[in-house]
Amino acid sequence: MPAVITLTTDFGTDDPFVGIMKGVILSLYPQVTIIDLTHGIEPQNVAQAAWVLKAAYSNFPKNTVHVTVVDPGVGGTRRALAVQSGNYFFVGPDNGVLTAVWDSNSRCVELTREKYFLKNVSATFHGRDIFAPVAARLAKGAPLKSFGRTVQDPQMLALPAPVWDGKTMTGEIIYIDRFGNAITNISRDEIAQHSREIQQINVKIGRTTVRGLADHYSECPPNKTGSIISSWNTLEIFEREGHAARSLKLKVGQKVRVTP
Amino acid sequence: MPAVITLTTDFGTDDPFVGIMKGVILSLYPQVTIIDLTHGIEPQNVAQAAWVLKAAYSNFPKNTVHVTVVDPGVGGTRRALAVQSGNYFFVGPDNGVLTAVWDSNSRCVELTREKYFLKNVSATFHGRDIFAPVAARLAKGAPLKSFGRTVQDPQMLALPAPVWDGKTMTGEIIYIDRFGNAITNISRDEIAQHSREIQQINVKIGRTTVRGLADHYSECPPNKTGSIISSWNTLEIFEREGHAARSLKLKVGQKVRVTP
Amino acid sequence: MPAVITLTTDFGTDDPFVGIMKGVILSLYPQVTIIDLTHGIEPQNVAQAAWVLKAAYSNFPKNTVHVTVVDPGVGGTRRALAVQSGNYFFVGPDNGVLTAVWDSNSRCVELTREKYFLKNVSATFHGRDIFAPVAARLAKGAPLKSFGRTVQDPQMLALPAPVWDGKTMTGEIIYIDRFGNAITNISRDEIAQHSREIQQINVKIGRTTVRGLADHYSECPPNKTGSIISSWNTLEIFEREGHAARSLKLKVGQKVRVTP
Repeated sequence: MPAVITLTTDFGTDDPFVGIMKGVILSLYPQVTIIDLTHGIEPQNVAQAAWVLKAAYSNFPKNTVHVTVVDPGVGGTRRALAVQSGNYFFVGPDNGVLTAVWDSNSRCVELTREKYFLKNVSATFHGRDIFAPVAARLAKGAPLKSFGRTVQDPQMLALPAPVWDGKTMTGEIIYIDRFGNAITNISRDEIAQHSREIQQINVKIGRTTVRGLADHYSECPPNKTGSIISSWNTLEIFEREGHAARSLKLKVGQKVRVTP
Repeated sequence: MPAVITLTTDFGTDDPFVGIMKGVILSLYPQVTIIDLTHGIEPQNVAQAAWVLKAAYSNFPKNTVHVTVVDPGVGGTRRALAVQSGNYFFVGPDNGVLTAVWDSNSRCVELTREKYFLKNVSATFHGRDIFAPVAARLAKGAPLKSFGRTVQDPQMLALPAPVWDGKTMTGEIIYIDRFGNAITNISRDEIAQHSREIQQINVKIGRTTVRGLADHYSECPPNKTGSIISSWNTLEIFEREGHAARSLKLKVGQKVRVTP
Repeated sequence: MPAVITLTTDFGTDDPFVGIMKGVILSLYPQVTIIDLTHGIEPQNVAQAAWVLKAAYSNFPKNTVHVTVVDPGVGGTRRALAVQSGNYFFVGPDNGVLTAVWDSNSRCVELTREKYFLKNVSATFHGRDIFAPVAARLAKGAPLKSFGRTVQDPQMLALPAPVWDGKTMTGEIIYIDRFGNAITNISRDEIAQHSREIQQINVKIGRTTVRGLADHYSECPPNKTGSIISSWNTLEIFEREGHAARSLKLKVGQKVRVTP
């Protein structure tokens, strides 16, 4: 069974940096399949990368190695990590980018064995010099512990969680997609726990109130705002045949209130 | 011989949705080769996707499975289809996106066998939950009829065809590319049928008249408008070392007139 | 060991042209791995493609075939070339795009054997009709000389080299990346040759003077301009947590002066 490596970066695709990482990986492991998760993370937006990784990682085959390079501290004192969590491996800088895939059974090592890096490690491109060769070797089957000493305290981000005050669930927008749909951190399960009838909730965002949860986009009249359960299984605000984020000036971090 | 699946969507590449579809495909069929045709279809522009698919599909190996997800009706009542047409397979929503690859010998089924989908089908992302797993299984060799009952009446778009009135061929722009070249629906064969000398035609677009058909771009003086046979084998309007669409304010749907 | 083909073009990724080239390649050589180096070369910017290729090509496995299609002269009199240089192959138009990978031991042929092209060669898309099928056959092991007669005088660009006048090294910006970092043509080696202490140099760009070379980005205070050795092993101007190219209005071709 061929191995898979995914790449998530803030490099964009106009520069050759992603292609260069793939060249390094293929030089070490020509049979591996390399998949771009996205290179459109906003420059240095570590939290965005953490959410994207969470949404995507478990759709891949077991033992997939997910490489995330959103790395403002490259070349400095931040550690470089490899993590095993459930059926997957993760490689990236120790800046919290792996927060949302970490659990109490995860294992983590610091990447210190220089013989697994490219020969001359630059100060500016550890994606090429460290993360790509380590990912190739992990995908090839090298054991986690061979890359360095165990780390017990990887950096964690304080990713926002929704709050229930007895009447209202308050969460926030964590991601806005190309279609202007605003994905929140309020999961379907959390709504169901506090609602007799999940379809009957009211959703407030800024000055807009949406009554009821749509079963599908087409249920909402054109150019009206609706709410729905997103493909990440959380509450989503959308505009039918429109772009909710532009129409309502939505931003990541904006509060969303749900009343059963 | 390894199988090939292509993906054509309006998802863009900044969000992780395309990567997620690939993860689902590889989980079911790790050996398959996945190729991005484009993810730059304008949001919900089904006709654009239909033209792009027509221009591209036959350049791929026999039995390639072409997946097209431009799907404003996702989660609603529109059907999901798999089609065999000539040497190729196609998977996508029943909204006309397969119009230009359909012919009288094509076979079509509705995707109804839920055991071939992901377990929990969302209301918003059938690319991941239905089209990706079906494509993987088609590429692996599952017969078309195993996915559901035969459909005789897939949705068809009224894609514009050029009209000849005895003096003039009137067609329109169907696609504008990154270079600002405007590709029309007037085929080389149709021009040849009505012209004694194909190189001698006049082309009118808005207030601009182009005299003669260039053999290659460099034949036209810099920053002048020219016409040429495009790589889709139809009439194309271009500006040498410029961007015709910007200079002439061209739009998809704009009329183009050819006089022999 | 699977073969690798890379693609570098100015096609962008919104149009289906890159996907079509991949279809042609896979039709001839289904087992090959195809990697996008970048499709974000500015339309017709041959020098930019030449620099990108130089920065990337040697990170790939031996015998990788690097295809570069930045081709304003397509369909005209410019020749089409295949080159062997060191451990790599290159395919592209004869317009200087291969300048930076050419050395005195390189071998070059003109692509003239039409039986290795697609059947009907268009005037506008040699990427599909000539370069893709030739690359597939080269990757499969066809000898260079089978594609056409030897060329001794491929077109070369006058890529700028830095100049040392006894006191100052004057180079220029050759590439600006997504982060706004400006990469110059002044190599680390050239700086070291003329400096007692490479970390102590002064760098002048426009009205800005940067004192000293940073070991890593984080050494520089936020929103200040710094200089560093880039991942291409040349001098780079950056802004910590900012976008130097925007802040300082930097452009490719702008002079950079280094004083030891």
